[in-house]
Formats: sequence, structure tokens, C-alpha cells
Amino acid sequence: MSKIAPLSGFPELLPAQRTVEREVVASLSRTFELHGFANIETRVVEPIDRLAKGGEVDKEIYVLQRINAEADARAELGLHFDLTVPFARYVLEHAGHLEFPFRRFQVQPAWRGERPQEGRYRQFTQADVDIVGRDELPFHHDVEVMSVMVDALGRLPIPPVSFQFNNRKLIQGFYRGLGIDDVTDAIRVIDKLDKLPADEVATMLVERVGTTPEQAQRCLELATIRVADTSFVEKVRALGVTDELLEQGLEELAAVVDGCRAVAGDRVSVEANLRIARGLDYYTGTVVEIFMAGYERLKSVGGGGRYDALASDGRTTYPGVGVSFGVSRTLVPLIADGVLAGSRPVPSVALVALNTEDDRAASTAVAAALRSRDVACEVAPAPAKFGKQIRFAERRGIPYVWFVQADGSHQVKDIRSGDQVEADPATWTPPPADLRPIIVTTQNTIEENQ
Amino acid sequence: MSKIAPLSGFPELLPAQRTVEREVVASLSRTFELHGFANIETRVVEPIDRLAKGGEVDKEIYVLQRINAEADARAELGLHFDLTVPFARYVLEHAGHLEFPFRRFQVQPAWRGERPQEGRYRQFTQADVDIVGRDELPFHHDVEVMSVMVDALGRLPIPPVSFQFNNRKLIQGFYRGLGIDDVTDAIRVIDKLDKLPADEVATMLVERVGTTPEQAQRCLELATIRVADTSFVEKVRALGVTDELLEQGLEELAAVVDGCRAVAGDRVSVEANLRIARGLDYYTGTVVEIFMAGYERLKSVGGGGRYDALASDGRTTYPGVGVSFGVSRTLVPLIADGVLAGSRPVPSVALVALNTEDDRAASTAVAAALRSRDVACEVAPAPAKFGKQIRFAERRGIPYVWFVQADGSHQVKDIRSGDQVEADPATWTPPPADLRPIIVTTQNTIEENQ
Repeated sequence: MSKIAPLSGFPELLPAQRTVEREVVASLSRTFELHGFANIETRVVEPIDRLAKGGEVDKEIYVLQRINAEADARAELGLHFDLTVPFARYVLEHAGHLEFPFRRFQVQPAWRGERPQEGRYRQFTQADVDIVGRDELPFHHDVEVMSVMVDALGRLPIPPVSFQFNNRKLIQGFYRGLGIDDVTDAIRVIDKLDKLPADEVATMLVERVGTTPEQAQRCLELATIRVADTSFVEKVRALGVTDELLEQGLEELAAVVDGCRAVAGDRVSVEANLRIARGLDYYTGTVVEIFMAGYERLKSVGGGGRYDALASDGRTTYPGVGVSFGVSRTLVPLIADGVLAGSRPVPSVALVALNTEDDRAASTAVAAALRSRDVACEVAPAPAKFGKQIRFAERRGIPYVWFVQADGSHQVKDIRSGDQVEADPATWTPPPADLRPIIVTTQNTIEENQ
Repeated sequence: MSKIAPLSGFPELLPAQRTVEREVVASLSRTFELHGFANIETRVVEPIDRLAKGGEVDKEIYVLQRINAEADARAELGLHFDLTVPFARYVLEHAGHLEFPFRRFQVQPAWRGERPQEGRYRQFTQADVDIVGRDELPFHHDVEVMSVMVDALGRLPIPPVSFQFNNRKLIQGFYRGLGIDDVTDAIRVIDKLDKLPADEVATMLVERVGTTPEQAQRCLELATIRVADTSFVEKVRALGVTDELLEQGLEELAAVVDGCRAVAGDRVSVEANLRIARGLDYYTGTVVEIFMAGYERLKSVGGGGRYDALASDGRTTYPGVGVSFGVSRTLVPLIADGVLAGSRPVPSVALVALNTEDDRAASTAVAAALRSRDVACEVAPAPAKFGKQIRFAERRGIPYVWFVQADGSHQVKDIRSGDQVEADPATWTPPPADLRPIIVTTQNTIEENQ
């Protein structure tokens, strides 16, 4: 039997930590629903040839096989590595039963067999929100779906996040207007600005993509434009490149930035960052990456964009636009750093103390009365001395202990303050702040990380 | 590329159907929390040698391998096939951070590579509730955890369920008192009463277990006792077998039946059924199987019991008692039969209509005002004729359409009744019944199935 030990890349949360994840998922879900997005869950497996479609990701797929399969049996199923591939398949499979544009959100784990590091796990939960059309999907849905994620993340008690937008049409139109032929290759090189100094990237553009030094210089100038409003439009125009697709991209990006700024509160910043490309080839318009203040080392904590062919069955094409938030990537480090914690590891607000084992029925009746009014509670496991029962509650973070007195009256003690008062199980209600476990944030830590 | 087609054994729900599953899981979770159970999630993979411990189940395990692993690499991880094995491992791994008795619930999928049929899937969601102690776990927790599941299932809008309890000590004590040596083997044979006639089972007891015909007769008499109260105690005593363990089992079973009857409402029946054994060897006291009226063909929709050694690390033993409810096993057939449905496939209560594309900002502002008071809504995708926008809402089951009038006033139309009234986005609230998608039950169907 294998030794009991954590599996690298498969983080697990303790009960109080799990409160953080549950509350975050509940908050995200509630926001998505307020915007009219329906929840779905897909099966976790897909045919391998569908998962491997993207090419570059196939090395990270976990394939499945029954333990007693024939030795030469070919594995046919793998675990999904994101929520986009299964969503595209779900749309194709169930298209006859869906209304388009179809608005869905999905919060599920995904799996990748890659080397684990902070923020990158082998099993990780994502929250995705997408709108998919049949044959066409008007651009205003780009603004809509991005605004929804801005709204959703702005409601979370996490460090401030930054949405950094760009637009593929803008980049492609600019490169085309400059006279660069291999736009895709140029984007791939510019994407290396993350890791390489600008002059090296310029050299690569000349040597690998075949641009002139002047073209390379313009590409770099475009890529350094980063503003928190729509002033990028003027800055791009000042570079003197004209192209129809570029104009369309500028207009779209300006609409996304304006629309998202309108719903962004204090905790979310919205920027046009013309260096953002996102490596994946299928984006065709809006692209976004999301970063968290103090956690830039995680790279993006979310991202997405517009894909004009999310799915296709040969006859019908389904364009989509969506954005994904890395729930595990964000929360596991925040919890590990003590930035977020659960207020207590149990849902119980009160421990109903036990005088003797024979009084269990009386204490159970008190608990039932409290539960009938939605007060979570539990009866003490043993009729220990009251001091011991109070310490039992204390260790679990249960704030109140309930005593059934010998004369049949009741008292409830707030074990934090020591206050003990008479109470009636048919009417007693704790303060709302105590009712359920909540997320505790160390605001200081959040500020320090900025 | 593989053809888009359903994968047998991996059921997926449409958005309205998913409402049913979400509401059921939310209701179960809320009840478990009211009783002080903390939620956890475990990673979905375990080392294969830990999964294969049980012996008989190993053929159903899905093993995992990275797609580019060496051809001769030994697979080391598999998907869990229930929530008990990962919970036991979680307890051992995190024991230093848990308070005992530890009360947890867990709602997650599990996987088995077995042949799919109605109610048996390759991916299925279970809801488990368990209490685990360190070194010891008093019997009263058996009553407690079973009562919690009775309470939880009694709140669900599913056909009536029946909890059928037995106790391993009762069976073992009875057999021992009768003078049967191989109690485990006898239980295994008696378990076949499901599929074989009584006389064949009697013959097997004589031939395979080595009982006398009289002993076999008594075993069958015990197994046919099935009552909805504690009168089984007298019926068993009337069989004239005396044994200390039998007495303890009778007492425990009576306490479980009494405790669960006390919390069972109209929709849950509680029985002592002395034929219930549950095949798995690790149960040591209370055992239960749960059946659903009209769906006896699914066999049990849940089950569980007491295991004196849920987990052990060699030094410390962790006894547990728990019960599992088959969420997919129950809901997928009920949804397929039309017994349960979601009231609509989208969360939106209202569609905010659009006069012209230029008015999108005005309609978006109305939507934001509604959302700020927790009214889920969406803006129409296109400024089509109002009749078309109303039909758009109708197809999605959205009950209200909101119109921004030319004079700046607002009207809202209930498209079911046709009633249209003036309304203010800052104050309008739909009736509570319309606020969120809910589960619609065809009560007739539930009755017919009984």
C-alpha cells in the first residue's frame, strides 16, 4: 500500500479553506446568473482525438483506461484540460435543444499532466462564462461577456485584478497595413516580449519573420501601448498605419474598454494593453488576460476572447466569445499565503451542550428547533464537564454554546465574549455575521502585495 | 476526428435539467450544514493500490496515464470509484488538522468502468455524509448520521424513499447463537435472497456453508422479518436464539429505527429489514439501503453503515459511520421519465427589450438596475420587432419582457398572462415564485410510480 502523502499538483483544502472556495464559487455563480447565464456541467472525459485537436497541448493530456483492459487496447478517452473543448462539443451535441445565442457558465475541474508549480496544478478548477451563437454572434456580446467577468471578479474579496484587453483584428490589421505577410508568425514573436528584451524580439522579427528593421520597430511601438482608457486609439493612429481591419479592431477594443470601465468598481482596473496576444491561434477579435495585484508571478489568473469558430459540424459554425477565471490558480496561493481564510471549519453556529447521556433527546430537540429556523448546530458528542464542552466548541470555532438548565430553562453563551443569556430555542437567532462561515480577508496582506 | 455522439454511461444534462440537479445538491448541502457537517472535496485521483484494496472492485477502476508517458510506464493513479476511499485517505493525510469526531459531507462525481444501464453510469455524482472518530466513535452517531440523511431526503421533491436498516451485530450474533461457524459466508449466501428463491438459498446454506437444514430455516426466518417499527425485537426473540452480540445488535437497530422515525416526514419510511446485509465486508454494525417508490428496479438509491475501521495508519484507527445518496442514479432516471424538470433553462426573470441598437445602453442600464436588486435578467440580443423579442423570451421560458418607452417610462409584460403594467427598474420585483428557476414535479407521475 502506498504511503499516505500529498500528491504533487493535486492540492486539497482543509474544511475552513474549503469555505473560501465554496463562497467564491457561489459568488461567481450568482453574478453569472444575474446576467442570465445558465449553468451546465459536462462529463469530464472526451475522445482523445478531440482533445488533441489543438496540437500543442496533447502532451499534457491524461488518458483513461480500464484497469483490466487488454494490454494492446488503444485508450480512447482523456480528461479534459480546459472547459472550452467540452463546451464546444456540448454545443454541437445538444444544438437541437439549445436556444442561440446560448449563454452558459461552467465551474468544474480540469486536468493537465504538466509539472506542478505555484498556481499551476494537475487538477484545477476553472470558472468559464461564454456566449455562443449559431452562424453569427454580434460584436456587442464581446462587451457583454467581458463586463460580466469584470462584475463577477469585482465582487470577490481578492486582491485587485486588472483586465488587459487587446484585439486580434487590431494587431492583424496593423501588421497587414505595415506590409508584413506572416502575421501569425509575427504575433508569435511579439508574444515573447514577456521573456525577452525588446531588441532581441526586434532582431527575431527581422530574422525569422522577414520584416524590415523599420517594420519591427513599429511592431514594438504598437506593443508598448498600454493605457487605462481609449486614448490608445490616438496613439495607434499616430504610428501612421492605415488598414480597414485595424480600424475595426480599434473600434471594437475601444467599445470593450469603455463597456468594462463602466461596470468596474474600485477593485478592478481595465486597460488596453496592445502587447497581449494570447498564444492560441483560434482567437479572432477581442482577447483578454487578467492579472492579480501582488501575484504577477502567477502570470494571468484568467483570460479569453472571441473565436469566430468555437465549434463547427461542417454545415453550421458556432462563433463564441468567453472568458475563463482560474479558481484554483487564484485561491490556492491566496489561501496558502493567509490572504484568505474561512472564519471557521464547521457550519455550526451553536453547540448544544449535553448534561448527561440520558439528556441527549432533550438536546437533540433543541437542535431541531434551531435548525427549523435555519440555524446550523450540533449536539455535543459526550456529556463531558461544561468547560470541556466549551473547549470542544472553541477548537471548532463554534461561537455559541447552548445549555439546557436543570429547571428546563435555556441559556446561550457567546464563548468569545463570555456573555451568557437566557434564550428560547423557538426564537433565538444569532447575529447575521455569525450565521454561516464566511471568508476572512487579511486586508493588510492584500495591500502589502500590491 | 471522432463523430459527435453521446458517450454511453456519461449522461449530460440540458440547462433546464441541470437546474434540477443543482437545486437537489443545494438542498442536500443545506440540510447537511444545518446538522453541522462541513463540506470537503477530495482530488479525484488516488494511488491504484489504495483503490484496489477492496479486491472485488478493481476491475471497474479507470487508470490514468499521461498521453506521452513511456510505453512501459506503470500507471500509478486511478479515478476514485466512490467517495469513501478518498475520504478515508483524506482523514489519514490531514488528521493533524482535523477535530474529531469529524463530520463531513462531500458531493462529487465518481467513476466506474462498468457496463452502463439505467441508474448505473460510468460517471455519477454521489452525496456522502459521514462522521469519523479517532480511536472510538460512540454508537449515538449512528442514529445521528442516519437521521441527517432521512431529514435531507425528506426535503427533496422526489418520490417517497424507504430507509431499510439492519445491523451486522444482530446478524452475526444470531448466526453465532445458532452455532454457525462461518458467519461471513452465511451472510454472503443470504444476500442472494434478492435474486434466488428461499428454498434454493436454504440449500446453498446447507451445502456451501455447512449449516443444518434447521439452522438454514432459522436464517431464512430471520431474513424475512421486515417491520416499520421496533416490533422486530420481539419477532427475533421469538426465534429462540440467545447471544450477547445479538442483544447489542437488537438494541442498536431499535435505536436507529426509533431515531429515524422521529425525524421522518410523510415522504420517508423507515423500516427494519433483517435481510439487508450489504455485500461489503467492512461494515460492523448499522447497515442501511435506501429505495425509491416506483423505482425499485434501480435497486438501492443509497446506502451505508458503520465501519469500525474506516481508516488506519497502523497506530491509530478511525471508526466511522456514514451514508451515501446516489444523486445521478436517482435524478437521471427521474428527469428522463419527466418526473422532475426545471421550470426554465435560463436564470433570467426578465428580458429587457431593445428598441434600436443605439438604445442598447438604455436597456443595459435597466438590466443593471434590476440586477442590483438580485433580479436576474438579460438584454435582447437584437432590436427585432417586439413580437419577435417576446417569442425569443418565450422560447427560453423567460416570464417577463421589459420595454423602455419612447417617453422614457417603462412597462413590463408578463408574457404568460399578457398583462402589461408600468414599472420602475429601481423598484420592480417579480413574484418570489418567478425569481429563480425551480424544480417542477409532475406529482401525478410520482404517484403513478408508486
